[in-house]
Amino acid sequence: MEQAEIGLIGLGVMGSNLSLNIAEKGNKIAVFNRSPEATRKFYAEAGELQGQLVPCETLEEFVASIRPPRPIIIMIKAGDPVDQQMELLKPYLSAGDIMIDAGNANFRDTMRRFDNLKDSGLTFIGMGVSGGEEGARHGPSIMVGGTEDSWKRVEKVLTSISAKFNNEPCVAWLGENGAGHFVKTIHNGIEYADMQMIAEIYGILRDGLGMSASEIGDVFGKWNEGRLNSYLIEISQTVLKAADPITGKPMVDVIVDAAGQKGTGKWSVIEAQNMGVAATAIEAAVAGRVLSSQRTERLAAEKIFGLPKVAEAPKDKAAFIADLESALLAAKIAAYAQGFAVMSAASAEYNWNLPMPTIAKIWRAGCIIRSAFLDEITSAFTKDPHVPNLIVTPAFAQMVKDTDAPLRRVVSYAALSGLPVPALASALSYFDAYRRGRGTANLIQAQRDFFGAHGFERLDGVDKHHGPWGSGLSEFA
Amino acid sequence: MEQAEIGLIGLGVMGSNLSLNIAEKGNKIAVFNRSPEATRKFYAEAGELQGQLVPCETLEEFVASIRPPRPIIIMIKAGDPVDQQMELLKPYLSAGDIMIDAGNANFRDTMRRFDNLKDSGLTFIGMGVSGGEEGARHGPSIMVGGTEDSWKRVEKVLTSISAKFNNEPCVAWLGENGAGHFVKTIHNGIEYADMQMIAEIYGILRDGLGMSASEIGDVFGKWNEGRLNSYLIEISQTVLKAADPITGKPMVDVIVDAAGQKGTGKWSVIEAQNMGVAATAIEAAVAGRVLSSQRTERLAAEKIFGLPKVAEAPKDKAAFIADLESALLAAKIAAYAQGFAVMSAASAEYNWNLPMPTIAKIWRAGCIIRSAFLDEITSAFTKDPHVPNLIVTPAFAQMVKDTDAPLRRVVSYAALSGLPVPALASALSYFDAYRRGRGTANLIQAQRDFFGAHGFERLDGVDKHHGPWGSGLSEFA
Repeated sequence: MEQAEIGLIGLGVMGSNLSLNIAEKGNKIAVFNRSPEATRKFYAEAGELQGQLVPCETLEEFVASIRPPRPIIIMIKAGDPVDQQMELLKPYLSAGDIMIDAGNANFRDTMRRFDNLKDSGLTFIGMGVSGGEEGARHGPSIMVGGTEDSWKRVEKVLTSISAKFNNEPCVAWLGENGAGHFVKTIHNGIEYADMQMIAEIYGILRDGLGMSASEIGDVFGKWNEGRLNSYLIEISQTVLKAADPITGKPMVDVIVDAAGQKGTGKWSVIEAQNMGVAATAIEAAVAGRVLSSQRTERLAAEKIFGLPKVAEAPKDKAAFIADLESALLAAKIAAYAQGFAVMSAASAEYNWNLPMPTIAKIWRAGCIIRSAFLDEITSAFTKDPHVPNLIVTPAFAQMVKDTDAPLRRVVSYAALSGLPVPALASALSYFDAYRRGRGTANLIQAQRDFFGAHGFERLDGVDKHHGPWGSGLSEFA
Repeated sequence: MEQAEIGLIGLGVMGSNLSLNIAEKGNKIAVFNRSPEATRKFYAEAGELQGQLVPCETLEEFVASIRPPRPIIIMIKAGDPVDQQMELLKPYLSAGDIMIDAGNANFRDTMRRFDNLKDSGLTFIGMGVSGGEEGARHGPSIMVGGTEDSWKRVEKVLTSISAKFNNEPCVAWLGENGAGHFVKTIHNGIEYADMQMIAEIYGILRDGLGMSASEIGDVFGKWNEGRLNSYLIEISQTVLKAADPITGKPMVDVIVDAAGQKGTGKWSVIEAQNMGVAATAIEAAVAGRVLSSQRTERLAAEKIFGLPKVAEAPKDKAAFIADLESALLAAKIAAYAQGFAVMSAASAEYNWNLPMPTIAKIWRAGCIIRSAFLDEITSAFTKDPHVPNLIVTPAFAQMVKDTDAPLRRVVSYAALSGLPVPALASALSYFDAYRRGRGTANLIQAQRDFFGAHGFERLDGVDKHHGPWGSGLSEFA
């Protein structure tokens, strides 16, 4: 019998869909699940794809049915279960075999697993898969981290199943060990920022201009035909136009304003901190979800403070809505610039040599943040892959020049109106700090030298590093 | 010979000063340093305090000279050296002896060290000491974490050496294991925010109103007599009024605007993330330092973008400066509220039962953020130690009501003028999100349900958790 090209363990929704996708693209795949009933059910329902499937009920049989060196995707709950599954699998594997964690792992776990296998002859791929259930079934964006040899072994299968943007596959090998899962984490951090910024604009339209959900949906619909064209803007229109089947009201007006989170936003912020990179838009987005979840506190606080009076809306409503569109684009640039800056720092720290143009490329389809915008980022990074910040690439510098004044007006209006815009405001502060050659940290350095004798550099380069604070010098630290 | 009350290892500047402080307050102290020369030199220069000092040249002699159970302060470079010193010390210790790490440790290391000693009969105190060299010598703020028994053994000595505020000692036992070092970390995070906010206000006065360093120093001097009275405002005046001995220019105008950091700001943000608490003012401050350090990039970006035209300054300059004073107070409230919220969450997570009024109390003197303001926080938390957020205590709610409009005007002015105010703006967003009963995360929940079937709650409590998205439901995750 012809051996399978690849194996997959874990036939939950994600694993099942990924298996069907692999089979459908003409790759023979061996599948295994802890409970054989699930395997049988999956196989029974696979219809015409059965011919490409090799359902297995023991790990021994499963491993034997795969062509060596064997790529084996593990698609189960992230965390300890992955380690346990790997231990169960190991005795059956041979030199060169590749265990592939396709779950939403913390890249630090991926680094550890990769290292632990180093001297075993086996190897490990950490693979970020974005696109959820349907993406898994019909075309996800796939971010691969592992050895180049192991990538070569799986390249053909993964290319066949990935999403395509203008016929270019949305999958790539991004570097050794944790590179794939790291990039997936930052993808999700950017997604948090993107969603938060859209929600802030929605808040201005709703609470500032007094527009209905449906009217706001129309605004997003129009924007989706312009520079903001993206999956998230598209679905914002869809959900804002949807009616609640129970009350007939706009669906969003019935939904509690408390957002959950699953960890990748938090991880993004922590890794930005570890890399020493400013990622304030992502931080603002994570904080936005935190505050949203403190609904009881918020309701109590509104009783104490009331709400500030909304500032007079600009006379020209259409012009103000155009400002909001530009502001959202500007803020989005900051969020992506920050996300890519975090990846750039991590690339140096972990010797991944992350290919920035490629990352932008494989996010253009299949994943939540897919957009026309990412095609522009792809071009910008392709022209200059080592630019220190997306903002200073010619195309994006021009976009910032075109949109920063509207962003200023929007942040100013929101500030005066008591409408919270943490992510938009953080984006503006980021631009304004980044573009200013002479900042204000000279005062901080003077304070630090005063109380802790930390020392400073002088603009004139003179080799004297402490101030004339007299008796105050080195008083406190 | 009378035994020493306490021992100290590590006669660097901090250790020497702490030893002299301990001796001066009438406590006999044994001292040890890896190189005996340092011990001899220290003793030789101790003058009239020699009578209270027991200089030791071997660990055996050192340990033997301390009254059991022996409290031994380790004041050396944080990290591995502390673990190594502890291992060297252990063989000489007896049941009940207490190793005290007084360095700037990450509380996670403190937790580990505390746990590792659990079954040894020995115990461990992690002690945050704020106030630097001079504080160590004449009165620091001291944050103690360890067992209550070990605290009782050192309470008298530490009380004698701590700073005093209205005769109340600035030292306290805050809880088990890592409590002291955790609180010290958050102290430093708040310090970052405080300094960043002052720098932002300085930037508006300098680049918005065109004032000189000396004029700005006068403004801070005046503020120091009002509600902002604090050590940091006081030294801001001092450093702004100082002249550079070389050029004669204002000292701050000669200092490079690139601020360093040593880790505690970053740790604060990471632990806020781990606790799921919004600490955006601290995040903005850490990011502010990061961007300040990217000076080459900033200078290049200014060449590309230039600087926005500063908005017309308000006609009534005095009124605008009063707005800035209020804005700084408002923003400061947000930063402290966030810092205390992080501690409150950590207290629950680690079962520390952190005493919030006491923490505010012991920060009133000895440390960098000491201020009149902390006395007001002490009162607020004393009246209601379990309030969910400082902002909703009656005294601070009133302060927010009095100052949020000025903060709005300042953020709006800065946004329009291109003056970066990341910490001030984040504080305003924090208030505006926290006080709003109906936020905008309902849109985020709708999006998440649309692309990932994450589900949502309904305002009417109806047990139906997915939207009528039709074929779009669960399309992507």
